[in-house]
Amino acid sequence: MNVIAAGDAAINAENFDALMTFYADDATLVIEPGRCVTGHVALRNAFVAIAEHFTHTLRVSQEEILVVEGAGTALVLAKTRIRATLKNGKPYDVLRRATYVFRREERGAWRCSIDNSYGTELLSSAPA
Amino acid sequence: MNVIAAGDAAINAENFDALMTFYADDATLVIEPGRCVTGHVALRNAFVAIAEHFTHTLRVSQEEILVVEGAGTALVLAKTRIRATLKNGKPYDVLRRATYVFRREERGAWRCSIDNSYGTELLSSAPA
Repeated sequence: MNVIAAGDAAINAENFDALMTFYADDATLVIEPGRCVTGHVALRNAFVAIAEHFTHTLRVSQEEILVVEGAGTALVLAKTRIRATLKNGKPYDVLRRATYVFRREERGAWRCSIDNSYGTELLSSAPA
Repeated sequence: MNVIAAGDAAINAENFDALMTFYADDATLVIEPGRCVTGHVALRNAFVAIAEHFTHTLRVSQEEILVVEGAGTALVLAKTRIRATLKNGKPYDVLRRATYVFRREERGAWRCSIDNSYGTELLSSAPA
């Protein structure tokens, strides 16, 4: 999905106005386990705070993408690489197995409705 | 989501007509990695074949459920327990970290648009 590469480029360039165009108006972003925000204003504020947290060095990319489509929605499974330099100067480099939900809008465009880079890690780590 | 418990009950009772009411008309089911079917007719046939494969002993239940909602869609993360007796008499008992996508229909009901019990396991097992 080209929209994901374009979204990553917008994050990496801190072009938050462009970034919002990839999200449905009342989309939800999982900021961290247990903390979600919904809607363009809240998402934009969250991305600004995330950029600051990562000292404006955040680089997001997808190393593998798999799309399952059904009934006007798409489940995107991805290996999302997140690299940055933290405020203490240490490198941050994680690979998440992310789950993104997209929905087809009335005019045919796909927009992200749920951005959960943590995937099934949100479930408790205990096996059952 | 009560709709998930009701769906599990329909699978366990092999009530496939009731089961289909929980899926959007053109929903997609991931039967196994690399194999998907779309639409009520194909889904119903798949569930009939799955029931036969598991010698009519299939029991599906959710041991943990987490819902993230945004823009008229819901991402359901679940620990899905699948128990059955195989044709060779051996027990089958797995716990999957599943990802289900639901969408709100025009009349307000939630129906499953993507049923992927394999979650992010569909991605290659290599770390990157």
